[in-house]
Amino acid sequence: MATKIRIGIVGYGNLGRGVESAIAQNADMELAGVFTRRDPAGVRPLGPDVPVRPLDAIGGFRDDIDVLILCGGSRSDLPQQGPALAAWFNTVDSFDNHARIPEYFQAVDQAARAGGNVAVISVGWDPGLFSLNRLFGEAVLPQGASYTFWGKGLSQGHSDAIRRVPGVKGAVQYTIPLDEAVERVRGGELPELSTREKHRRDCYVVLEEGADAAAVQEAIVTMPDYFADYDTAVNFIGEEQLRRDHAGMPHGGFVIRSGRTGEGAAQVMEYSLKLGSNPGFTSSVLLAYARAAFRLRQQGSAGAKTVFDVAPGLLSPRSAAALREELL
Amino acid sequence: MATKIRIGIVGYGNLGRGVESAIAQNADMELAGVFTRRDPAGVRPLGPDVPVRPLDAIGGFRDDIDVLILCGGSRSDLPQQGPALAAWFNTVDSFDNHARIPEYFQAVDQAARAGGNVAVISVGWDPGLFSLNRLFGEAVLPQGASYTFWGKGLSQGHSDAIRRVPGVKGAVQYTIPLDEAVERVRGGELPELSTREKHRRDCYVVLEEGADAAAVQEAIVTMPDYFADYDTAVNFIGEEQLRRDHAGMPHGGFVIRSGRTGEGAAQVMEYSLKLGSNPGFTSSVLLAYARAAFRLRQQGSAGAKTVFDVAPGLLSPRSAAALREELL
Repeated sequence: MATKIRIGIVGYGNLGRGVESAIAQNADMELAGVFTRRDPAGVRPLGPDVPVRPLDAIGGFRDDIDVLILCGGSRSDLPQQGPALAAWFNTVDSFDNHARIPEYFQAVDQAARAGGNVAVISVGWDPGLFSLNRLFGEAVLPQGASYTFWGKGLSQGHSDAIRRVPGVKGAVQYTIPLDEAVERVRGGELPELSTREKHRRDCYVVLEEGADAAAVQEAIVTMPDYFADYDTAVNFIGEEQLRRDHAGMPHGGFVIRSGRTGEGAAQVMEYSLKLGSNPGFTSSVLLAYARAAFRLRQQGSAGAKTVFDVAPGLLSPRSAAALREELL
Repeated sequence: MATKIRIGIVGYGNLGRGVESAIAQNADMELAGVFTRRDPAGVRPLGPDVPVRPLDAIGGFRDDIDVLILCGGSRSDLPQQGPALAAWFNTVDSFDNHARIPEYFQAVDQAARAGGNVAVISVGWDPGLFSLNRLFGEAVLPQGASYTFWGKGLSQGHSDAIRRVPGVKGAVQYTIPLDEAVERVRGGELPELSTREKHRRDCYVVLEEGADAAAVQEAIVTMPDYFADYDTAVNFIGEEQLRRDHAGMPHGGFVIRSGRTGEGAAQVMEYSLKLGSNPGFTSSVLLAYARAAFRLRQQGSAGAKTVFDVAPGLLSPRSAAALREELL
């Protein structure tokens, strides 16, 4: 490849840092710069020579960046940044608010088309690779049932919910798929599983001084939507232990499709991820789709896309002929 | 969908029968007819009203068929039929002679382009869904190693090889992945595994009357390419037992990608299939890609494609908007 794909990073948290270190693993890419809403002087990229610039100034870099990776959050950052930046750049993001994907797609699509850019939204593992496996499962086995299990892994949303409980100083929450349910699904039983039968939730909580442990525990396990429908264990630990044992962000899970083909045979398709670092993996998926966005644009495409719209070959640095010869 | 996708089946063995029963599971498809090189009077489809016609006459049905599924073998049928039929029809096939894929692609591509048709080659699970997972694995985790394990499953090629040994009346061979190897890979060890460390081979053999069991066993376990590099067990059984216990065609396997993302975290991606019927599953994959071939043609595409070239959304009967809303 003659010239490298020039990547820009918008937002420099766990995901932005992950993208930066993933670029070093991809010989056909280079980092053009980090853009932040914070004071650039306070942002320290891993690479010593990486330029950090205010997001406000990004309009001046349209000729220097091939694809922008949007590393902001789905709640407040992306709904604004996604459409605004897709008007100027090819973009990839990990928008994961499932219920709002249709309206987000619409807004980004309109901006990307107007700007002649390609914007791949909702990339990562769920939404993302898990979504693809849900699709393959039901397309290949129309008669059957699909199951998604998450974990064992740290849920940021549930950890945040615990931290909002009065008396809680710090907390993490692990989502744990229940072995018995997974085994029944793998065995081709097609069980109907309640929320409680699929996952349990383990919480590690540091109390504020003087907080009432029993009241905190009660507030957590009865919390609607987040915990009330699950078997939830609350473990109180010290601050030092939280820092020492629960700083990682492991995650993963399974997508299983179980069904029968026309002649009656049982068939089971399973996709599973065991991730040492959720943001590290998600950012690697984002980069593979950045390569696809770049190529789609080169082919004359424009508008919003999802993983469903991207031919898998576009993700690989190899040529189509090499892929047929070496991977097919 | 207003009108159904009209499917034609070429070749009516296990795979052709599988395609016929899979069509009944897909509401947007219908079977236009079976085409055979045999005497049509001797071919009995599952459906009582399915027309069976001589393959020679297929040129007269170009207006009645949207996609042809080629169910012949990769050794002698497809190299001839693939290009010949892609000149006249959209086609999907399961060409699985890995070493000859580049030249087959070339021949089919030329014919399909000339005819303005779409021909998706080498569809199924390996090549096919396994190939896709090898691609996703290395695109997302560029630093790591990929492993493909097959089985437990019946290998048609190895069963045929045993049947050619003098003194053998009947035989089946199962390929069995070795648990220890799979577990080491899953554990993120990145082991270098020899052929013998990945799979073993179990053979069930019926002897001709008066055959020398020891000589047959020796001929099998020392057979180059097929068995010499594996630990192979040969079990002699009766003809009745072969018919009763070994008539199914189960198969499956695993594709595992194990690697580290830039910040050093271990990440493992695994895809696995547990198939009660290999031809039943393969034919279901073929049908999903027939839907994609039909749509690609409608979009103005022409030429040979592989699973790497097909956007996953094209496989599903759902609209792009429904996929985003319900599966992403």
